[in-house]
Amino acid sequence: MTDKQKELFNVSKNNFSEWYETILKVADVVDKRYPVKGMPILKPNGWYMHEQIMKMVEKEWNQQNIQKVQFPVLIPESFLNKEADHIKGFSDEVFWVPFTKDDDQENTDEKKQIYRCALRPTSETAMYSVFGEWIQSYNDLPLKVHQTCAVYRYETKSTLPLIRAREIHWNEAHTCHETENDALQNLEMAWSSYRDIIENRLCVFGLRLRRPIWDQFAGSVHTDVMDALLPNGKCLQIVGAHYLGQKFSKPFEIKFLDNKGEWKYTYMTCYGVSTRLLASCLSIHGDDKGLVLPPAISKYTFVILPILFKGKDEIVNNGVKTLYEYLTSCGYYVFVDNSPKRPGEKHYYWEMKGVPMVIEVGPRDVEKNTFVVVPRIKLSNNEKIIVSFDYTPTEWDSSSFHGGTKSNDETHKELNNILTNYTELLKVESYKNHKARIYDATSLEQIKEYIAIGGFVRIPFYTKGVEGKKENDIIHAECGGEIRGFIPDETIESGIKCAMTGQPAVCYAYVAKSY
Amino acid sequence: MTDKQKELFNVSKNNFSEWYETILKVADVVDKRYPVKGMPILKPNGWYMHEQIMKMVEKEWNQQNIQKVQFPVLIPESFLNKEADHIKGFSDEVFWVPFTKDDDQENTDEKKQIYRCALRPTSETAMYSVFGEWIQSYNDLPLKVHQTCAVYRYETKSTLPLIRAREIHWNEAHTCHETENDALQNLEMAWSSYRDIIENRLCVFGLRLRRPIWDQFAGSVHTDVMDALLPNGKCLQIVGAHYLGQKFSKPFEIKFLDNKGEWKYTYMTCYGVSTRLLASCLSIHGDDKGLVLPPAISKYTFVILPILFKGKDEIVNNGVKTLYEYLTSCGYYVFVDNSPKRPGEKHYYWEMKGVPMVIEVGPRDVEKNTFVVVPRIKLSNNEKIIVSFDYTPTEWDSSSFHGGTKSNDETHKELNNILTNYTELLKVESYKNHKARIYDATSLEQIKEYIAIGGFVRIPFYTKGVEGKKENDIIHAECGGEIRGFIPDETIESGIKCAMTGQPAVCYAYVAKSY
Repeated sequence: MTDKQKELFNVSKNNFSEWYETILKVADVVDKRYPVKGMPILKPNGWYMHEQIMKMVEKEWNQQNIQKVQFPVLIPESFLNKEADHIKGFSDEVFWVPFTKDDDQENTDEKKQIYRCALRPTSETAMYSVFGEWIQSYNDLPLKVHQTCAVYRYETKSTLPLIRAREIHWNEAHTCHETENDALQNLEMAWSSYRDIIENRLCVFGLRLRRPIWDQFAGSVHTDVMDALLPNGKCLQIVGAHYLGQKFSKPFEIKFLDNKGEWKYTYMTCYGVSTRLLASCLSIHGDDKGLVLPPAISKYTFVILPILFKGKDEIVNNGVKTLYEYLTSCGYYVFVDNSPKRPGEKHYYWEMKGVPMVIEVGPRDVEKNTFVVVPRIKLSNNEKIIVSFDYTPTEWDSSSFHGGTKSNDETHKELNNILTNYTELLKVESYKNHKARIYDATSLEQIKEYIAIGGFVRIPFYTKGVEGKKENDIIHAECGGEIRGFIPDETIESGIKCAMTGQPAVCYAYVAKSY
Repeated sequence: MTDKQKELFNVSKNNFSEWYETILKVADVVDKRYPVKGMPILKPNGWYMHEQIMKMVEKEWNQQNIQKVQFPVLIPESFLNKEADHIKGFSDEVFWVPFTKDDDQENTDEKKQIYRCALRPTSETAMYSVFGEWIQSYNDLPLKVHQTCAVYRYETKSTLPLIRAREIHWNEAHTCHETENDALQNLEMAWSSYRDIIENRLCVFGLRLRRPIWDQFAGSVHTDVMDALLPNGKCLQIVGAHYLGQKFSKPFEIKFLDNKGEWKYTYMTCYGVSTRLLASCLSIHGDDKGLVLPPAISKYTFVILPILFKGKDEIVNNGVKTLYEYLTSCGYYVFVDNSPKRPGEKHYYWEMKGVPMVIEVGPRDVEKNTFVVVPRIKLSNNEKIIVSFDYTPTEWDSSSFHGGTKSNDETHKELNNILTNYTELLKVESYKNHKARIYDATSLEQIKEYIAIGGFVRIPFYTKGVEGKKENDIIHAECGGEIRGFIPDETIESGIKCAMTGQPAVCYAYVAKSY
């Protein structure tokens, strides 16, 4: 590393905590200086990337005909109290907003009784208060809505930007169905969308786990999550998807007339993803030079660096202009770095920011009808890829591939190939790292060893029931790891013994330290 | 009106209040049943339209290089208190969230002193708390950011969905500049964007007024607004754009080193638009049958109604499928209404929803290679427009206008023409209505007469200063109207006398009843 590079960013990823907090600051992702604990400012770069992920999710929900809505941030306490497990799970971490009795002089007596409201910690109880009115008969089912908003939780543990915050930006979906089967199928569709986004576009891999009973979402029948390993070997929950059964539909009276004219309670699901997706993506791909972004979330796919030489400025600038217009017409997000910095400094800067590809255009490139692509990570032995490009197209040809000139169709195709290879490489590396850190253990000693290294430890376990909490607590006390859950469809051969009790194992449990 | 139509929606727009609240409910815009006062649920249709407007605004700001960010919803009380006029203006309407002293054990002593935070009533003080750290030298200027979020104001007056709420969804922009001139120019750019959106896409017209001193934004040097007349003759503020001068940069220490190495305070502006834009748009265009939507915000531009006849269903359904695919490939938002309702009922329903164009496709249409467009408002003497369309295109031709088949390029062009005429007609009608309700008055008696009719009353006035509040209060006591402001660049001939005092008039003042 050069001095210039170190000035910009100089933390080894081996010190993951420091690396994470520093790069988030330097790369314009968050600003932690806002003095309310757990509520950093989302800066332009960070907010852009989070919004890109939210847009991917929203697009999936739109295709699945899940309607986008917006519910109020304030939830009357009486709503939160309706489902007993739910309020137990959230009551300690609610921000309360007090109302005095005479605030709402117009309101009816019933409404006057609201004496305080929660800043929504999650929106089940807000939404479910009206779902019963929105649903009359089976014709109104399935009812599927989602919203992109912020939720508020009074975290008392130490907070970490994008990971453990008191203001959490997220997207949450909530659905009501006629049958349990419909509800479960809906969850599978959600998983398929989440997986596509997370694996194919964010290039992140994790385990889908069914949380143990003592650790599931407050008010759910069961909770499936995706837990992904961060570089320090701790896992982070990046998806929560809950089957609620009729646990909410009964207290909230969410009923429908079935086709035999009988009233039935709906079967419900809810699921959400937050800025933790961004946190995992940035954490997993970044390196000692800074961020490494998948093209799907990078504000710029290409940053063009004009390489100026005395007397050739005009040639270069004209070439850059032509190339910029061409790439933009292809639908890429492009930035031309015309700052007075030297090319080397510009390289370091955009490397730190994680932009997938820097493009160099010098006078000889223009003369030879080429430009040079420098991907953020090496795709082959060569750091630089030379791409042909006709800087002097003479005809606009609307029938060409990209709507530009036919002679440059090859350029577009080649860049798409390079980007595809780049994303593929991120995926392969990420998957390899994920897989390499799933260990098998058959004793508490082994669990402790692997947890010390960092990763998931798979152990044969004697139960999926609540009694397993005893062994979980022992593991936790011994090494800080905990049972994160069971893979829903994973089976175990008979005759294998539980790593903790020696009893016959009925499943594999996954142990990890967690955020 | 038929009975079926009345079942759906049956309120004359002459009863504007009832019309407004009813159509918002029936057309799936808001649900007022949520029990927190002033916080209705934004339903799918309402949220979609509001988001469309927000996207238009965001696109403009993106083009002007205003960065999108997200600041926390909680603002420490000490920040709100920093600018004296600002807190005076907002203190009565703040939702406070209490913190107890030991909540933040990790925090420094200074931070512990935050004992309560406001739900942001507007974001000046949150943002300006860090702007000073983001700006070092003139190289960092202009600093321009915006965010789309909700703000919270404890309205004690009666609330009205989208118009006067306690949770207000909006977009707000905040900028810092080297000079007063830069700041004022920035405001003019914002106005040009707002006007384009409001007039050309929402087809709404209003007056840009500079608010009298006693009525300007708390903490501004001056406040310019757009006030638009609703059908009941009351005006609604739909834009607020504020020149803040150095009133915030001084208490918040937002300084920069100029090119002579001297520290200077920045000149600042802020501006925003909320769901009131949607409220004005829906109110102004709607009629006794329901909503009338400009294509720019309608979820569907076209709704296709298959007109089925026995034995010809397949012909119709195939035709509808071809047309749907074609229209979608042209980039239109299209819905095919396959519900079991009769065509008449479907018409009433989509009329009520305000969809710009219903398209009928019957067997004879398919046979004759046509379809029938029924615009929500009559564009000529004929209610129906017959459009040619080749249902049996044989070749896909990528060089054609819309990327479909060349033979149907004319269809696309004709539909675009119809849509343009439709938008134009909305604009013309809306502008005419706006203009027709600006009256000139030269005495209090006349003011009262015109205010009783409803509209803006322009009066010669003796001052733009604070002393004018005396006459304003008289007007308000006499007829409920008030001085809404002055058109910044409007001049008045000498020799004209003030309508209230008989003194020489220095300007025109605009009087209206307001929301």
